[in-house]
Amino acid sequence: MPKVVICGAGLVGALNACFFARRGWDVEIYEFREDIRQMEHVPGRSINLALSCRGKTALEAVGLKDYIVEQGVKMFARLVHNQDGVTMSRQPYGQPGEHIVSINRRHLNEVMITQAEGYDNVKFFFEHKVRQMDLKKKTVVVEQPDTGVRLDVEGDLILACDGAHSAIRRSMMAVPQFNFSQEYIEHGYIELNILPEKDNFALEPNVFHLWPRGDFTLIALANTDKTFTTTLFAPFRIFEERMSNDKDVVQFFTEFFPDALKKIGVDALLETFNRIKPQTLISVKCKPHSFAGRVLFMGDAAHAMVPFYGQGMNAGFEDCLVLKEKLDECNDDIEKALEVYSRERCLDAHTINDLAMYNYLELKDLVNHLSYKLRKKFDLFANKWLPSTWVPLYSMVTFTRTPYHKVVEVRKWQDQVLKQAFNVFLLAAVTGGAFVAAKHFKML
Amino acid sequence: MPKVVICGAGLVGALNACFFARRGWDVEIYEFREDIRQMEHVPGRSINLALSCRGKTALEAVGLKDYIVEQGVKMFARLVHNQDGVTMSRQPYGQPGEHIVSINRRHLNEVMITQAEGYDNVKFFFEHKVRQMDLKKKTVVVEQPDTGVRLDVEGDLILACDGAHSAIRRSMMAVPQFNFSQEYIEHGYIELNILPEKDNFALEPNVFHLWPRGDFTLIALANTDKTFTTTLFAPFRIFEERMSNDKDVVQFFTEFFPDALKKIGVDALLETFNRIKPQTLISVKCKPHSFAGRVLFMGDAAHAMVPFYGQGMNAGFEDCLVLKEKLDECNDDIEKALEVYSRERCLDAHTINDLAMYNYLELKDLVNHLSYKLRKKFDLFANKWLPSTWVPLYSMVTFTRTPYHKVVEVRKWQDQVLKQAFNVFLLAAVTGGAFVAAKHFKML
Repeated sequence: MPKVVICGAGLVGALNACFFARRGWDVEIYEFREDIRQMEHVPGRSINLALSCRGKTALEAVGLKDYIVEQGVKMFARLVHNQDGVTMSRQPYGQPGEHIVSINRRHLNEVMITQAEGYDNVKFFFEHKVRQMDLKKKTVVVEQPDTGVRLDVEGDLILACDGAHSAIRRSMMAVPQFNFSQEYIEHGYIELNILPEKDNFALEPNVFHLWPRGDFTLIALANTDKTFTTTLFAPFRIFEERMSNDKDVVQFFTEFFPDALKKIGVDALLETFNRIKPQTLISVKCKPHSFAGRVLFMGDAAHAMVPFYGQGMNAGFEDCLVLKEKLDECNDDIEKALEVYSRERCLDAHTINDLAMYNYLELKDLVNHLSYKLRKKFDLFANKWLPSTWVPLYSMVTFTRTPYHKVVEVRKWQDQVLKQAFNVFLLAAVTGGAFVAAKHFKML
Repeated sequence: MPKVVICGAGLVGALNACFFARRGWDVEIYEFREDIRQMEHVPGRSINLALSCRGKTALEAVGLKDYIVEQGVKMFARLVHNQDGVTMSRQPYGQPGEHIVSINRRHLNEVMITQAEGYDNVKFFFEHKVRQMDLKKKTVVVEQPDTGVRLDVEGDLILACDGAHSAIRRSMMAVPQFNFSQEYIEHGYIELNILPEKDNFALEPNVFHLWPRGDFTLIALANTDKTFTTTLFAPFRIFEERMSNDKDVVQFFTEFFPDALKKIGVDALLETFNRIKPQTLISVKCKPHSFAGRVLFMGDAAHAMVPFYGQGMNAGFEDCLVLKEKLDECNDDIEKALEVYSRERCLDAHTINDLAMYNYLELKDLVNHLSYKLRKKFDLFANKWLPSTWVPLYSMVTFTRTPYHKVVEVRKWQDQVLKQAFNVFLLAAVTGGAFVAAKHFKML
C-alpha cells in the first residue's frame, strides 16, 4: 500500500488521516504541537466555526457527520441588531429548515484525531515540527522533539496541511512558476464571551447574531454549553484610536453595541481587552497546489481566507473529499490525480477566497442597505418557486457542492437575467405611461 | 558612525555601498557568489540593461555616471522589423537627442564593486551566504564559506539587496501585516547573440531592435564590442509546441524573424537552443518595504518586475538615491527615514511593476496597432510644442524622475483631456454637419 505523509494534525490534516486510513494506505501525521486532547489551553485560531454542506458531506464520507452535527448548534438566520440596542431584523439563510451549524474548533479536531487514531494504519507524531520539503530527495524534513534532530521522512504522497503560514510552502517559494500571494486585511479581531443567564442562553441560540456598524462588526455564535463566542472585527486603526484604554473600550461598546455590552459585562470585556491583542486576518492564494507529482497543499496552506463567508473550514474539508474523488477517478495514480486536482481546485480556491473578501464588505455594511435586502428577499422568493433554477449565491456556496467557480458563473447569469428583466419592465412602464398620457390628452 | 549591513553585491547592493561609503558609515557587504571580477562566466540574469534618467541620476550622485554612460551604446528609437524581413518602421523614444543607454550588466556591476572597494570604510565578504534575518536578535545570519559556520552579523541598518528570491525576505514571510505576491508570467526568454559582420555592427547600433509578433517578441540591443544581445520572449507553451527540435526552431525563426535569423545564423541559433532552456520571468510586490526600524528591502528583493519597461535596474538605482534623500531629510534618523521611505516607495514600486506588466502587452502587440502609433505621434508632437505641460507616459518614466505614481496620475489627466477634446470635436462635427444639411435642404 502507498504511504501518505500528512504535515499538520489540524482540522484538514486530521480529516485527511481518516480518509486515507479508510483507503487502506499507511498514514503518518506530523504535528508540532503536543496532542491537543491533553492540553489545557490551545492557542491560535478562533474558537467557533460554521459547518455547512461541503464540510458535512466530507465528514459524512468518513462516518463522522451525524456525531459532529449533533454536538453543534443549528443557525437558521442572521439576526441583525440595530444600534439602538433594541430593534432587530431577521434574514433567513435559505428556505425553512436550511441551516448552518456552529461548531467548536477544538472539540471537532479532537473527535477527528480520536477517530483517525482508531485505525491500525495511522501513526501520529506529536511535537514533531515540520521544517521544510526537500524536493531533491523528495522527503519532508521533520524536527524531533527535545533532541532537535532532523529526520528525512519519505512518502508516496505528501500533504501540506500546515496552515496559513505553511513551512512546506515557504520552503518551496523559489520553485519556478509558483505563483503566490498573501494579503492582510485592515481588520483584526478579538474574541469575547457571553455567559449563560440563569442556566440558559443569554441570546436566542439558533441564529447568527450580527451587529453591523459600517467599518466594524460584532458577531456571536452559540455553543452547546450555552455560551456565545462573540467576535469584534475592526480596523487595527480603530482598535488603536478608539479602544486603547478601559474608558474608551466601554465608551465604544456603549455607543455601538449597547445590548451586547449588557450581555458581555463590563468587567469581562475589559479583562479580555487587557489580556489579548487584536489578531490579524490573512488571505492566501497560490498556484499550483501540487508539485513534483507528490506534494499537495491543502486547507489554509493552499487557500487561507478571511472568515466572512464561513467557508474556510468547509473548503478545507471539501479539499479532502475532492482529493478522494480524484484518486478514485484516477485509480490511485497519484501523479495524475494531483494534476487534475490542482488544475480544478486552484480556480475554486481563488473564487471562494474572492467571495470571502467580498463578503467582508457585505458583513461590514451591505446588510443594512435596502438594495441588498431586496435582492436577498427576491432571491429567496424566486428560489422557493423555482428551486432548481434559481438558487441564491449564498445558498449555492453554503447548501450545495456546486464548484465555487460555477457558483460565480451562475450568479453572473442571474445578474444578467435581472438586468434584462428590469429593462423590459422599464420599457413597459414608459410605453404604458406614454399610452395613458396620450389617452388623457386625447391624442389617441 | 552607524554601520550598514548590505545583503548582496549585485547592482543595487554595490551602488548602496558607494552611497553609504560617501556618507561615512561603516559598510559591510555579504555576497554568496565569489567576486564576479574573478569569474569566467557569471550565471544568472540577462546580459543587457537599458540605463535611463533614474539610473543615471543615481550613478551621478556617486560620481560614476559619465564613466558608465561612455561605455554603453545610445539608443534613440525603437526600430520595428516587420515579418516580411525587409520593411521597418522607426519610433523615436522622445525628442531628438533623448535616448537610453544599452549597458552590459556584468561590466556595470564590476565597476561599482571596484569603486566601492576604493573606500576605506567598505568591507566586502564574498562567498558568504546570507541565510535569514533574525528579527529577535536584530541580526543577519550569514554562512561562512567552506566551514558552513553561521555568524550573527549586527548593523544599525540592514539592506536586503539579495534579489527576487531574497533569503532575507523569505525569512520574514510570517511577520504580521506583511503583504506579498510573486507572479510568474506565461512568457519565458532565451538569449541569443548577433556577431559583428566585417568588424562592424550587423544591424544599426543606435536603436532598440524589435520584432513584435503578437504573442511572442524578439528584441536586440547593441554592445560596445559590436555584438547584439538578442532575446526571444515567448510563452513556455510556444517554446514547447513550436521549438522543441532543431527543425522546428529553424522553421519558427524562418517564418517570423527571417532577417534576424540571417544575422544570428542557423548553427549559432541551434547551439543556443540545445544548450539552454527558456528562463522564467517573475513579478514581485510587497508592502511594507521596511521592518523594525532597521531592515529595508531594496531593488528586486522589494519589487522584481517583468523587463518590458526597461525600469528594473533604474528603479533599483533610484531606491538607493531615495534612501539617501530620506536619510538627509531625517538627519540620519534611521527609523524615521525608513518609515517615510517605505510609505512613499511602496506605491511607486507597485506602480512601475504594473506599468511593466502593461508594457508586456504593448511590446507583444500594441506597437503594431494604428491607434497606439497615432497616440505616440500625437504625444511627441504635443510634447514638442508644450514641453513642460504635455510629457508622454514613456518619457516621464524614462527621461524624468517624476515619482512613478505621479506619472500615472498625469497620464490619467492626459487621457481625460483627450477624451473631452474628442467629444467637443464630435459635437462640433455633428452640429456643423446638421447646419450644412439644413442649409442644403433650405430649412434655414
